[in-house]
Amino acid sequence: MDINNIRHSLAHLLAMAVKEKYPDAKLGLGPAIDNGFYYDFDLGDKTLTENDLTTLEQSIRSFIKQELEFKAETVSAEEAHEIFAAEPYKLELIAELEKAGEPISLYRSDSFVDLCAGPHVTSSGDIPRDAFCLERLASAYWRGDENNKMLTRVYGLAFASKLKLNDFLDQRAEAEKRDHRKLGKELDLFCFSDLVGPGLPLFTPKGTIIKEELQKEVETICRQYGFQKVSAPSLAKQELFEISGHAKKFGEELFHVTSDKKHDLVLKPVQCPHHTQIYASKSRSYKDLPIRYMESDKQYRAEKTGEVGGLSRVYAITVEDGHTFCRVDQVKDEIKNMVSIIRNFYSRLGLWTNHWVSLSVRDYTHPEKYIGELEDWETCEKILQEVSDEMGLKAKRCEGEAALYGPKLDFMFKDATGREIQIPTVQIDFATPKRFNLEYTNEQGEKVSPVMVHRAILGSYERFLVLLIEHYAGAFPLWLSPVQVKILPISEKQMTYAQEIFTELKANEIRVELDESNETLGKKIRNAKIEKIPYLLVIGDKEMTEKTITVEVRGTNKGEKQTLSDFIEKIKSDIKNRK
Amino acid sequence: MDINNIRHSLAHLLAMAVKEKYPDAKLGLGPAIDNGFYYDFDLGDKTLTENDLTTLEQSIRSFIKQELEFKAETVSAEEAHEIFAAEPYKLELIAELEKAGEPISLYRSDSFVDLCAGPHVTSSGDIPRDAFCLERLASAYWRGDENNKMLTRVYGLAFASKLKLNDFLDQRAEAEKRDHRKLGKELDLFCFSDLVGPGLPLFTPKGTIIKEELQKEVETICRQYGFQKVSAPSLAKQELFEISGHAKKFGEELFHVTSDKKHDLVLKPVQCPHHTQIYASKSRSYKDLPIRYMESDKQYRAEKTGEVGGLSRVYAITVEDGHTFCRVDQVKDEIKNMVSIIRNFYSRLGLWTNHWVSLSVRDYTHPEKYIGELEDWETCEKILQEVSDEMGLKAKRCEGEAALYGPKLDFMFKDATGREIQIPTVQIDFATPKRFNLEYTNEQGEKVSPVMVHRAILGSYERFLVLLIEHYAGAFPLWLSPVQVKILPISEKQMTYAQEIFTELKANEIRVELDESNETLGKKIRNAKIEKIPYLLVIGDKEMTEKTITVEVRGTNKGEKQTLSDFIEKIKSDIKNRK
Repeated sequence: MDINNIRHSLAHLLAMAVKEKYPDAKLGLGPAIDNGFYYDFDLGDKTLTENDLTTLEQSIRSFIKQELEFKAETVSAEEAHEIFAAEPYKLELIAELEKAGEPISLYRSDSFVDLCAGPHVTSSGDIPRDAFCLERLASAYWRGDENNKMLTRVYGLAFASKLKLNDFLDQRAEAEKRDHRKLGKELDLFCFSDLVGPGLPLFTPKGTIIKEELQKEVETICRQYGFQKVSAPSLAKQELFEISGHAKKFGEELFHVTSDKKHDLVLKPVQCPHHTQIYASKSRSYKDLPIRYMESDKQYRAEKTGEVGGLSRVYAITVEDGHTFCRVDQVKDEIKNMVSIIRNFYSRLGLWTNHWVSLSVRDYTHPEKYIGELEDWETCEKILQEVSDEMGLKAKRCEGEAALYGPKLDFMFKDATGREIQIPTVQIDFATPKRFNLEYTNEQGEKVSPVMVHRAILGSYERFLVLLIEHYAGAFPLWLSPVQVKILPISEKQMTYAQEIFTELKANEIRVELDESNETLGKKIRNAKIEKIPYLLVIGDKEMTEKTITVEVRGTNKGEKQTLSDFIEKIKSDIKNRK
Repeated sequence: MDINNIRHSLAHLLAMAVKEKYPDAKLGLGPAIDNGFYYDFDLGDKTLTENDLTTLEQSIRSFIKQELEFKAETVSAEEAHEIFAAEPYKLELIAELEKAGEPISLYRSDSFVDLCAGPHVTSSGDIPRDAFCLERLASAYWRGDENNKMLTRVYGLAFASKLKLNDFLDQRAEAEKRDHRKLGKELDLFCFSDLVGPGLPLFTPKGTIIKEELQKEVETICRQYGFQKVSAPSLAKQELFEISGHAKKFGEELFHVTSDKKHDLVLKPVQCPHHTQIYASKSRSYKDLPIRYMESDKQYRAEKTGEVGGLSRVYAITVEDGHTFCRVDQVKDEIKNMVSIIRNFYSRLGLWTNHWVSLSVRDYTHPEKYIGELEDWETCEKILQEVSDEMGLKAKRCEGEAALYGPKLDFMFKDATGREIQIPTVQIDFATPKRFNLEYTNEQGEKVSPVMVHRAILGSYERFLVLLIEHYAGAFPLWLSPVQVKILPISEKQMTYAQEIFTELKANEIRVELDESNETLGKKIRNAKIEKIPYLLVIGDKEMTEKTITVEVRGTNKGEKQTLSDFIEKIKSDIKNRK
């Protein structure tokens, strides 16, 4: 049984139920969609409420029980006009079919008839009675055009079995619980302001801690592989991006910067052209290479105003970007280093275990989409294949996935909700150095072009934060938690001792908060759990007398007595080892 | 003897010398200026060279010897027209004086006459013969207007004594040696690119290290006083700055950001309005205050295109900015904390010993220049006076130096070249929180406005770097040096041992470089000295055999034998203690 036939047939039964209840309702459209179906109605002065959905659902179940036959039929235009004389929206559709000279087909089930090309189930009895539900009400313009009348839309969910419906509902509930916008607010990680505007998130102290910890992590790893931080401006003359090819690539997504003093600049959409200019600021010798730059800075994209939302789509992404300038004979080692960095970083986050690698090559049928020389492209693809083989990456060749200037290795992971995420990438680029006339003096004293290798480890902090929030459902690992420990004195009596512990933890550079409220212990614990803090230290009279602490680990619901020094030793080691 | 009379009289003697050599030269203007004088000439098809300056200087010296009298005279417009019949530029000036009904005065010395209101020396013999020189040639539009003819300008230096002239030349040579643009290039700290554009510096790895060390330093100190980092976008709707008052204040200096997709935003000229929006993102109680935010981010100013240069004036300054939101009863302690932070930071840089403090209050005669309530201004001024008294700051009241929204404490230091620098500031602000309707719930359960206190410690990294480069003449203290140690093996033979030392220093997080070139030791040392590296480690056979190193401290020209472990212990302690 095709699930789409079931979904589409349920849409008809929904319309039949609505017509039974409201004979004057006019029918709009009612297709099958992902996970279910909908139907649009013009109810005149009537309105539907959530309660009506239950009644309509009951009607649909009774139609299923009646095992109504779904019968296809083709009619002439005149017949169609007669049948749908009272249905203005259908008449509009019929007129269009007539004009296009297309056949007019109907589907009948019992007394109900709809203008429809099918296909459908044979009998309503084929529809599983416990695998659907009417989900929610919405409004929608007739045919999506805001100049048309607003209709009432009823959405339904439908699957092949009750198990599948429940799985879907569970997954959705889980995704809603993990939604980064919801958790970002609950955990006070970032916020938006109407005065600043949409698409422009403001990171609170807690969100900033996570961003900074991630930055320290990736920079520490990259420094071991010889990357040096640089710092480039956000602005440049448009010419810079015309030479690099990005002005054309980003087109309408470029932000233009002007002033009353006749400035004419753009906000950088990418970092690489600026980095080429730092390379170009000095004469370079073959002995100086490879030169490796990294930088975490904002890059700007003029996303459509209606499409920005949460941290997923914003006007400025803070990208952790890195570029190597090297000789051809160094390219392979550079790529291997970058793959090692990626493996190292994602392993520490526990994501490496479930990954695959794409060797993203050109769309061979559309060479005009790319810049650079053919032979360079071929050299690059060969090098990437060798790296994949030598490092056991088992990269899959994916055509048409290359970057503007060269082929690349892309790394795909699965997060805790099963979603595939693609962030890290390693890209070879012979074209950009040539476009900017970059050079170095080789052993023979000749001026030649270096090769550029681009790498992204965590991509943009904004999108990576979305991933982490939803992956961990806000329960960040210890080293990333904005607050690592919260001290909960049972009453005012233990406050001095609690403050001593607070000072001691702070002196050990542990991110700690002290609950100084007058709430009950139960309330204090509940509040701390909403904040998903890894360790709660409960301090009562006993702890105070014994000079101990009671430690409750996140998710355990039980405390364990320890000395403060043991706790500090353990937590410091866990932070260091990214446990 | 007024030095300006000497300078102005020298300008006349210069014109006299030029007219003697080129009788057809037409005279422009010739005023006294800081450190000397200039005179503009229209030389027709003649040109002056540097060699001519020596001849002209000799003529001036002979005029001085002749003890020519400077005689003032007032003439009618007709007389003036007759006297200056061959001087079109003077005729233009005479016509203006005539129109304005002003008296027309001349100064004569020997055969030379100039349109001039004086005053002058009585006799050219009053001019010290050995305390002036003709300095250089330049071009300048008549009256500075680019629509006018380009004239030849001769600049001269003149002082009251030879000693003062020499002091000035020494100081200027020293300033040139310390010039941040020159040293920035020599030490490879930052660069510019024609493709990126002027006013947009790119920081190289070495420059970035200094920026980051400074940032770590100031953030470490501020964290001890409860500041938390936040991260705000660079863009906002203009409305944000209209409410804050900055749109009006910055006016033409605002950068506007647009796109083909109809975005209409501005680049932030300051940080405070964004920080108010993070505060406003949650409801706040009196128990939550003070809330202290800090951030190092770029702020944008559309400086005049012709005025950007080096790091002193750029389109984006990276500002280390901080704001406290607190209750009125907390303001004084907050200000004291901020003063302590400033004292701490500048003491560690050795600048606190030579400072003074300005209590910058309103221009009482122009209240329209400020925002906010009169009584708030008075409260603020009172609090600042109390802080000054209680902390022994001896702040001087400076009228008209207040910020848009409130009075402030400004801290002034003297750098090594004797220049006064004004960077740190603490400012009370009752107005901004009210403009943004910020509030907190007080102990009585009422919603009331917090007070905002602004503070700058090092100001912008760009300008602070200018200060540091010029203050230290590029010889940064150890903790700020991009390269702290350079290893100089005498020959290839000691390379393995040198590499061991390199690895050991790196493992101890010391910024170290190894000279792997084939140069002689002498050349290696000379190169390292240009880079002003604090410690050079010379490695020869003897050091290799004895497992020691020879350490040459910057500026000493002599080496001292040490064990590596002693050296590491010493250098780590010096870095930690900011020695």
